[in-house]
Amino acid sequence: MNSPSPGYSITLRVEVAATAGSTTDLASAVAETGAPVTALDIVESSHEKIVVDVTCNTVDDGHAQRIAEVLESRPDTHVRKVSDRTFLLHLGGKLSVEPKVPLKNRDDLSRAYTPGVARVCLAIAANPEDARRLTIKRNTVAVVTDGTAVLGLGDIGPAAALPVMEGKAALFKQFAGVDAWPVCLDTTDTEEIISIVKAMAPVYGGINLEDIAAPRCFEIERRLRAELDIPVFHDDQHGTAIVVLAALINSLRVVGKKITDVKIVISGVGAAGHAIIQLLQAQGAAHIVGCSRTGAIHRGGTYTDEHRQWIAENTNPDGVSGSLHDALVGADVFIGVSGPNILGAEHVATMADRSIVLALANPDPEIPPTEAAKHAAVVATGRSDFPNQINNVLAFPGLFRGLLDAAAHKITTPMLVAAAEAIADCVSPDELNPSYIVPSVFDSRVAPAVAAAVAGTAGN
Amino acid sequence: MNSPSPGYSITLRVEVAATAGSTTDLASAVAETGAPVTALDIVESSHEKIVVDVTCNTVDDGHAQRIAEVLESRPDTHVRKVSDRTFLLHLGGKLSVEPKVPLKNRDDLSRAYTPGVARVCLAIAANPEDARRLTIKRNTVAVVTDGTAVLGLGDIGPAAALPVMEGKAALFKQFAGVDAWPVCLDTTDTEEIISIVKAMAPVYGGINLEDIAAPRCFEIERRLRAELDIPVFHDDQHGTAIVVLAALINSLRVVGKKITDVKIVISGVGAAGHAIIQLLQAQGAAHIVGCSRTGAIHRGGTYTDEHRQWIAENTNPDGVSGSLHDALVGADVFIGVSGPNILGAEHVATMADRSIVLALANPDPEIPPTEAAKHAAVVATGRSDFPNQINNVLAFPGLFRGLLDAAAHKITTPMLVAAAEAIADCVSPDELNPSYIVPSVFDSRVAPAVAAAVAGTAGN
Repeated sequence: MNSPSPGYSITLRVEVAATAGSTTDLASAVAETGAPVTALDIVESSHEKIVVDVTCNTVDDGHAQRIAEVLESRPDTHVRKVSDRTFLLHLGGKLSVEPKVPLKNRDDLSRAYTPGVARVCLAIAANPEDARRLTIKRNTVAVVTDGTAVLGLGDIGPAAALPVMEGKAALFKQFAGVDAWPVCLDTTDTEEIISIVKAMAPVYGGINLEDIAAPRCFEIERRLRAELDIPVFHDDQHGTAIVVLAALINSLRVVGKKITDVKIVISGVGAAGHAIIQLLQAQGAAHIVGCSRTGAIHRGGTYTDEHRQWIAENTNPDGVSGSLHDALVGADVFIGVSGPNILGAEHVATMADRSIVLALANPDPEIPPTEAAKHAAVVATGRSDFPNQINNVLAFPGLFRGLLDAAAHKITTPMLVAAAEAIADCVSPDELNPSYIVPSVFDSRVAPAVAAAVAGTAGN
Repeated sequence: MNSPSPGYSITLRVEVAATAGSTTDLASAVAETGAPVTALDIVESSHEKIVVDVTCNTVDDGHAQRIAEVLESRPDTHVRKVSDRTFLLHLGGKLSVEPKVPLKNRDDLSRAYTPGVARVCLAIAANPEDARRLTIKRNTVAVVTDGTAVLGLGDIGPAAALPVMEGKAALFKQFAGVDAWPVCLDTTDTEEIISIVKAMAPVYGGINLEDIAAPRCFEIERRLRAELDIPVFHDDQHGTAIVVLAALINSLRVVGKKITDVKIVISGVGAAGHAIIQLLQAQGAAHIVGCSRTGAIHRGGTYTDEHRQWIAENTNPDGVSGSLHDALVGADVFIGVSGPNILGAEHVATMADRSIVLALANPDPEIPPTEAAKHAAVVATGRSDFPNQINNVLAFPGLFRGLLDAAAHKITTPMLVAAAEAIADCVSPDELNPSYIVPSVFDSRVAPAVAAAVAGTAGN
């Protein structure tokens, strides 16, 4: 069973009798269901009754309902309403568009709008690069999705994907001052998505592709990179790859091994796995074995899909074949971007001494971190309730901040490497240990460091 | 020659000798060029010299340059820099995207983003109408253009159109609290524009089409209205029509005539003219003659374009033919949405007694208002430097506010009429006179009145 989460916090409005101890009894009853009480606010009070808002973290809908039933069954107690705080926070959406200029009087209007704006338009018509100086293009990124691979939810469509894209846009602003705007497209046609993004590009200084299913995402990114003059970045691929490389750099520092020497097994050869392989190779990794559900991908295999064929031709120099468990024997590093609970402690035990396990499947990793830690020297997951959370928030805000600051026209592999190294270097040698291989997602030094590294690389 | 305008305000940074009267002499020299000085700020001061920022309104680039030359030619005077305040205001663009939710700690993140956001996504997937409650769709409008008919500048393209769309979005927020986002499309293909707007619609509660050339704009609007479940509105057509109807309602009150009785001549049968004809007819106007460059459109004429053919079949019941000047004889109302200086006072003199002239061509009206006023009882233009400015800002913010508040799926003609009547009624009987037929664009009562009228109509 999952633990109670602040992502599933509820507020119950409850009437109780106005007797000594009635509110503390209420709080205890809630806590006894396994829901930590985080706030208790008296809303109304009279001689006969008290109305209390009890806020607590729950596990799921069933837990929330059980709490309400438990309270309702108590004498002199009535549950008026149960509010889900996550839904309350989403009411009306999570973004607003704000004017940066005053519009209070005629003079304001004549500068920000007609007739003054006409001269600004003509300046851009004469010199299109001026759009990066005189419009929002300077600081604005599109967060583009078709809603086909959203979180762990799969193909839920563009409308249902919007809350995630709004959240992403909010993170862009919060962590790096980037204005980001959600573009949720009601089409899954590769060519149509490409032509739409190209058509809407004049407003944006960069494109962040998000939660688009493979293999479509490969073609969309490849074509847009070739056909647009602004950076295009599929976060599920390259954002993940950057943070994985950062985590690997610091893990290797902890165990005292070199990326050029270690044997790396990657479980999952979809969009993320593919990008991780390419970025690790760019940093010198020479012994990578990619594994799909059917086992290790090697030159001797037959693959209908061009991306697996590429992996077969460009990894696994020793021709390792067999299952994931076979490939893992003697490996130094396991990187999982696949599914839950496919490894046990006994498999990690077969890895080389001082092994590294990055088990990133969400919400449930390839192996529970407590199991992995029985044999591995370093363990990381995508979860926030264990140490070493591998989270793309460490990469994308600073990356785009750097790209916009440099007015970059494209993203290069050296930029991705520079971003990873900047994240890794935010953990100082004094701080580095097996439980702290990546900085906290709330470490405010990360985004500026990534931005400076990326902008510096863009300038070369 | 045009007058100096705050839309063309400049700041000159000037060094002068530190003598008594040197700064007032400087201000006088600027004023003598015909540029009103609006500010004079000392930036540096020493025993030898003073550095002053002189801000003034100018006519155009030539005027600004002449001022700099005049000052430079004076003894002990040096112009360090000339800054255009309109360009300064545009640096970095005019909009920002702001998070409406806190993202300071792990609890915030787990509600606004993963894992909590997943439940919100699933709720919308299960019930798509929830997107209007739980996402920015509730309050967000797209301002869509292809940059082909921007202001009076024509086809300047999507990048150069962006400052206008940003300004429009800023007005939406300032006047009606609507979040609006610029969508500048790098295509002029009608079918492609239609498919793009349909694909991106999940994020928006309404579509404001803007500055799209005729006849493309007709087909785009018609199709999107038929194929989308959110309101679609081409502001250059219907926004103009609403404000013209509002102005006409009050003008008729001033002159004591009825819309069902008056003869109305409309010069210009493009996008705006077409929409004006339809809205005035919806309000009961029975005697409308539309005039193009070749004269009155009537049943006997031959028109290759379907929109003119529609006008021929549905207006001009008396079969008036001949030139605009011919058609104007005996007319009660002239409405111009065409080009500059096509009428003289002598033509207005041929109109009926107590005539109304709404000459809306921008920046130069069909007849200078001072000329029109020699014979007309009521005169209005699109200019801000004469009374009775007919400005779409009176309509679009409140209209979309009302549509969003009502969660309307479409725009109907009764809504447009209700908006026009609400604008007209913001001028009280006590205020109404020939110089005050529409409220000021800065009258904060207008948008709420329009919103309430539109939402009320939507509910019927």
